[in-house]
Amino acid sequence: MSGLTPVTVDGVDVSAGVTAARGFRAAGIPAGIKGGGKPDLALVVNDGPNVDAAGVFTRNVVKAAPVLWSKQVLTERRLRAVVLNSGSANAATGPPGFQDAHATAEKAAAVLGTGAIEIAVCSTGLIGERLPMQAVLPGIDTCAASLSASPSAATDAATAVLTTDSRPKQAAVTHADGWSIGGFAKGAGMLAPNMATMLSVITTDAVLGGEALDTVLRAASRVTFDRLDVDGGTSTNDTVLLLSSGASGIVPSVEEFTNLLSDMSLSLVRQLQADSEGATKLVDITVRGAPSETDAIQVGRTVAEDNLVKTALFGSDPNWGRIAMAVGRSQFAADPDRLGITVNGVELMRDGLASRDRSEADLSGARVEITIDLGAGTDQATIYSTDLSHGYVEENSAYSS
Amino acid sequence: MSGLTPVTVDGVDVSAGVTAARGFRAAGIPAGIKGGGKPDLALVVNDGPNVDAAGVFTRNVVKAAPVLWSKQVLTERRLRAVVLNSGSANAATGPPGFQDAHATAEKAAAVLGTGAIEIAVCSTGLIGERLPMQAVLPGIDTCAASLSASPSAATDAATAVLTTDSRPKQAAVTHADGWSIGGFAKGAGMLAPNMATMLSVITTDAVLGGEALDTVLRAASRVTFDRLDVDGGTSTNDTVLLLSSGASGIVPSVEEFTNLLSDMSLSLVRQLQADSEGATKLVDITVRGAPSETDAIQVGRTVAEDNLVKTALFGSDPNWGRIAMAVGRSQFAADPDRLGITVNGVELMRDGLASRDRSEADLSGARVEITIDLGAGTDQATIYSTDLSHGYVEENSAYSS
Repeated sequence: MSGLTPVTVDGVDVSAGVTAARGFRAAGIPAGIKGGGKPDLALVVNDGPNVDAAGVFTRNVVKAAPVLWSKQVLTERRLRAVVLNSGSANAATGPPGFQDAHATAEKAAAVLGTGAIEIAVCSTGLIGERLPMQAVLPGIDTCAASLSASPSAATDAATAVLTTDSRPKQAAVTHADGWSIGGFAKGAGMLAPNMATMLSVITTDAVLGGEALDTVLRAASRVTFDRLDVDGGTSTNDTVLLLSSGASGIVPSVEEFTNLLSDMSLSLVRQLQADSEGATKLVDITVRGAPSETDAIQVGRTVAEDNLVKTALFGSDPNWGRIAMAVGRSQFAADPDRLGITVNGVELMRDGLASRDRSEADLSGARVEITIDLGAGTDQATIYSTDLSHGYVEENSAYSS
Repeated sequence: MSGLTPVTVDGVDVSAGVTAARGFRAAGIPAGIKGGGKPDLALVVNDGPNVDAAGVFTRNVVKAAPVLWSKQVLTERRLRAVVLNSGSANAATGPPGFQDAHATAEKAAAVLGTGAIEIAVCSTGLIGERLPMQAVLPGIDTCAASLSASPSAATDAATAVLTTDSRPKQAAVTHADGWSIGGFAKGAGMLAPNMATMLSVITTDAVLGGEALDTVLRAASRVTFDRLDVDGGTSTNDTVLLLSSGASGIVPSVEEFTNLLSDMSLSLVRQLQADSEGATKLVDITVRGAPSETDAIQVGRTVAEDNLVKTALFGSDPNWGRIAMAVGRSQFAADPDRLGITVNGVELMRDGLASRDRSEADLSGARVEITIDLGAGTDQATIYSTDLSHGYVEENSAYSS
């Protein structure tokens, strides 16, 4: 856990979440999965009139049971509700674990008067342990009884999914035409989502069908959740869900919706980045001058995951030699003689050679902006990362997740 | 620095080094590159009768000036001597840096009465700084004056190349037929050599031509230096050189030579592993049941570089869920239902599911053996790695390298 202040994204309200859009209720309660009276079960319900939905999931080939379940139900692109739990990932649990995810959905469907095919399930916590169904099933009754469209209900849901996170992460935006998007996200470690972050549920009252929701969610995730890389650890449970109630009655343009969804998702990413395990620096790595966006991402992720770069940043050392080493070992064949590296506005390497003195780059603050110029094209991408601190080692050597 | 005892490789003498084979002299002195009177310049000379040689170098596209120089001279596959320095990597120094490497070789050639084309140069230290030639050039005179074939001269050379290493690493083997191989290596961080380790010089008095030396060096490096992965940081300066004096007059079989060279190189790798920055555990990751050796290496390296796995091991936690996560995010498309994970002899995951209880795997000692069974073939590979500790973060946030 770290106490960094997230980078603010203009126009995004971080005090509202999944109930900001009309047509949604939420709840979060302690169901006894974690023990100690901590909130660990959440429900987000779409009251319609529409129940269109889309989802993006982890690319890890080891997929948790709730991911397998939710991917399956989302082939219909309709969701009435999402059940989420912390305290157990229900991953590497085989067919019995899949049955547990199914039973969770059946229970929620019964309580809400619908079919299990319209219920997604998300889990987070320790890999390899079965879900304690004796706590989950009655918990769903309790959770359903406390459903509310209030802002505090959204916060309760955002809180019940936390693991090593120190605080809930929410964001909401409203378009001038009168439709809104809101959501929450969780995740503090094992954080290098690839098509999704650890867990995030986003709701909207704009009118978009399942196919349009799928398009806008992929477009927004690609430039927000997929650009976060704390430790290279693409989880077994990564999931982002987008639910539309259509309650505003307004049909937005896909472009406008994608833009607002991206702003709102970027705010969640900024909150995840600031609260990630042991982070003492918010590190943005922009790779420009790339022949393609894919190349820029490839180089940016290699630098973001490099422990020698990350520990130098923890030590507030603008060690551009380590950055050049990491660029050089990435899969992109950089031309070392065209390479440029700028740290917090000071150009330390230019055309492969030392430029201004490293002492001129001030890394004493909590924000670090690294710009790498490959001198090989016009494309670019930014990866959102952190440093590697004693706190990260401490949390991850002491906590089983 | 860590004080772990390296894993012993049978039949290898770790008290002898580059002067164990006949025909070689060495020296290591403080030349004032580092300051503080620390040894920082080494010379290894081949007195013949033969001067055959081969080398393998970093695959990082950002190559240091001495790597560019040494690769160039090795196209002739002949080396009379190697000049090595610590205190500066002479990397990202452009044409002036290349001139410095060239001038270093010219100076050594003049002192030894040969041409610069027969002199390799190796450097290690901070990236982006020029070599202090006013210290290097007179240092070569001093170094040449103290050349000796004694074991202590080999140790002096092995000591002069150290950076954050806590001790010199040497190894020597002698074949029953009467020929020997000896060498040293250095490296403690930025340690994931790809075709070579940070710096290593190996000598032999067996008779092998340049082409044969190239073949055996590549074969041995592929299964030793290339399997070491402490932090994924393939350096700009990685170099392994193999020099043959032929002084024994014996022509070995390529197979026997490769086997002994591999044993000796593995001993150096084991010493590098045990002395790597902040290591508290020696972690061997064996991936078996792979369709190809390349797949096994790919999976093993992903697990070896995973910070969540590494921190769990530092905490003596047999967290197989994190290992499964890392396998799942590697480029090899594993079948999660066939995956098996054994830690220190205890099978924790079998066919994708939890097997014996994690508490049965004892990780309290300094050695951790992880076996990952992909259930997809008959090939295998072992990666030699370490945990990720507070010591690693401390050294790499405080030391500029």
